[in-house]
Amino acid sequence: MSKNVLILPGDGIGPEIVAEAVKVLNVANEKFNLGLELVDGLVGGSAYDVHGTPLPEETMEKARAADAILLGAVGGPKWDNLEDRELRPEKGLLGLRSGLELFGNLRPAILYPQLADASSLKPEVVSGLDILIVRELTGGIYFGKPRGIRTLENGEREGYNTYVYSESEIKRIAHVAFQSAMKRNKKLCSVDKANVLEVTVLWREILEEVGKEYPEVELSHMYVDNAAMQLVRAPKQFDVMVTGNMFGDILSDAAAMLTGSIGMLPSASLDKDNKGMYEPCHGSAPDIAGQGIANPLATILSAAMMLRYSLGEGAAADAIEKAVSNVLDKGLRTGDIFSDGMQKVSTAEMGEAVVAAL
Amino acid sequence: MSKNVLILPGDGIGPEIVAEAVKVLNVANEKFNLGLELVDGLVGGSAYDVHGTPLPEETMEKARAADAILLGAVGGPKWDNLEDRELRPEKGLLGLRSGLELFGNLRPAILYPQLADASSLKPEVVSGLDILIVRELTGGIYFGKPRGIRTLENGEREGYNTYVYSESEIKRIAHVAFQSAMKRNKKLCSVDKANVLEVTVLWREILEEVGKEYPEVELSHMYVDNAAMQLVRAPKQFDVMVTGNMFGDILSDAAAMLTGSIGMLPSASLDKDNKGMYEPCHGSAPDIAGQGIANPLATILSAAMMLRYSLGEGAAADAIEKAVSNVLDKGLRTGDIFSDGMQKVSTAEMGEAVVAAL
Ligand SMILES: CC(C)[C@H](C(=O)O)[C@@H](O)C(=O)O
Ligand SMILES: CC(C)[C@H](C(=O)O)[C@@H](O)C(=O)O
Repeated sequence: MSKNVLILPGDGIGPEIVAEAVKVLNVANEKFNLGLELVDGLVGGSAYDVHGTPLPEETMEKARAADAILLGAVGGPKWDNLEDRELRPEKGLLGLRSGLELFGNLRPAILYPQLADASSLKPEVVSGLDILIVRELTGGIYFGKPRGIRTLENGEREGYNTYVYSESEIKRIAHVAFQSAMKRNKKLCSVDKANVLEVTVLWREILEEVGKEYPEVELSHMYVDNAAMQLVRAPKQFDVMVTGNMFGDILSDAAAMLTGSIGMLPSASLDKDNKGMYEPCHGSAPDIAGQGIANPLATILSAAMMLRYSLGEGAAADAIEKAVSNVLDKGLRTGDIFSDGMQKVSTAEMGEAVVAAL
Repeated sequence: MSKNVLILPGDGIGPEIVAEAVKVLNVANEKFNLGLELVDGLVGGSAYDVHGTPLPEETMEKARAADAILLGAVGGPKWDNLEDRELRPEKGLLGLRSGLELFGNLRPAILYPQLADASSLKPEVVSGLDILIVRELTGGIYFGKPRGIRTLENGEREGYNTYVYSESEIKRIAHVAFQSAMKRNKKLCSVDKANVLEVTVLWREILEEVGKEYPEVELSHMYVDNAAMQLVRAPKQFDVMVTGNMFGDILSDAAAMLTGSIGMLPSASLDKDNKGMYEPCHGSAPDIAGQGIANPLATILSAAMMLRYSLGEGAAADAIEKAVSNVLDKGLRTGDIFSDGMQKVSTAEMGEAVVAAL
């Protein structure tokens, strides 16, 4: 039976890096007889340019029909000043996440031993770093209503957003987090601001409750300000961290940057049946788009994650990850992870090297 | 004319560290003939224990009457499970901030050359670090209404908070930020999430508008997730950062931790007339409370900031800061900043050393 994969290159460096991941997927497809069928679609600014909307119904239909989705990145200055905020590229991404109920966002922050120097932290602080951040992705303040900008009686304007989570939303992400912890070192740190925000008081309570079903997992709680500090001070204290959409956005980016090589980090966004969308942790980097210098490895590793989590093809995923590791061992580096003595390569050269290693 | 200073030791290590700052203030008072009158009061858990509320009316009255306030820290596990959330220690602190309209929170993150080793970041990334984070302190989601936990029609509970800023709230903190930038390197980075949150769309717009009054200041904007990343990657790119209450809480703690010595960092919370409350950036550290090992320097430096910003006593402030620097030069260190070859001292020994140097 064939498996239907939707490819969404998006904006900025998206098309360049996705092209390399597609090369890798095609080779893996043949080699491991995966039966993948790749379809493509538009999302973000590039969809807006063609269809006048960042998430055309056609793309949404393809996404629903797909077994998994591989996305590049969305956004760029070209669309930053669109008057109607609903038409901005980010809304395409947010629409996919919520439309497909991809509430479970897994963001690993792993330090590749070959790239240990790239980190801005001292080697002893980050060597061997391997954290998984589980971010709730379809709720919280990024989706909460009411929201907007209104004019008050005194004539001045006021902006407002709503940070909201229901018990069931918290429960389902808690299960994802505990299950992830069970597959790792069985330590889960839940991040909230329960000393100030009621919504996170409920969050903490539900985490405790769900935790009873996972007695082997050691559950702890940390305030978000302290978590930001502890990630800088001693990140290796963490195994799995779980938090809401906004705190997860901030902390996962900080955690990714601890490795110094965000161009290497994949992510998965899963629904309740493990159907998922896979994308690099980094953004669309419009400043370097079109120059053929972006690092395609995070996208290639996202494709590997996709094979493992959504398509049940662990062996092919392993092979791709091994190929990436080989290429790093050989000293090939795109500009973002370059260091003295290494060989600087372009986006396409990097992709082809992974294909060759595969 | 005498100047009335309210001393609020608070909880945990608060009383120990404040005691040392008071010794220093008393000596400065005599030496520089400052005419300070110190009054004390209860806030936080210690106020709850005596008066059943974390912010007794008596304390609030003293705070209103004072020319400036020096606070230790509040909170601790003892009060974490209070059923009525309004009675938790943090509410005392939040009540002071909002009751006195201390909307302008200045949090410097400075790397002391003597403590360069303490940072978890590579020396070249942080040496000479000197950032000022301006955090809005009386608005945003920490104060927004409606808020609470309610039961939905389907029987499940839902937690909710409101992230809200009015134009005038944004304007006044913007002025504080631009004025701070004018006194420094004239670079201001405003942090928001304008690609997703409407309240920060208004924030960005107002920052631009107020920026026109400060043509010499170079204003930039950064999304909060990227800001968290950039602080880890290359913090020296920043001079002054300005942001709302919640993002400021998270980013200022991360920035403080970049220095590796959060036990050294003071903060000021100012109203529109520069009346202010001064407190260390660190928390109440209940785990080490009562052991006499906490670092009193952040509180001593907060007292210096108080003399400079609210009491117009720059010379005395300089002298205290110089005394602290001398003590570090001599190799005296509390446990949190201890390194090989230095002399480990207690909270009181550190305080007395500063007094002696003064
Ligand atoms: C582009 C933006 C809407 C998105 C988010 O904030 O979720 C991005 O920052 C991310 O983390 O995937
Ligand atoms: C104690 C708490 C309410 C407070 C805050 O979040 O503002 C603290 O974290 C701070 O940063 O001063």
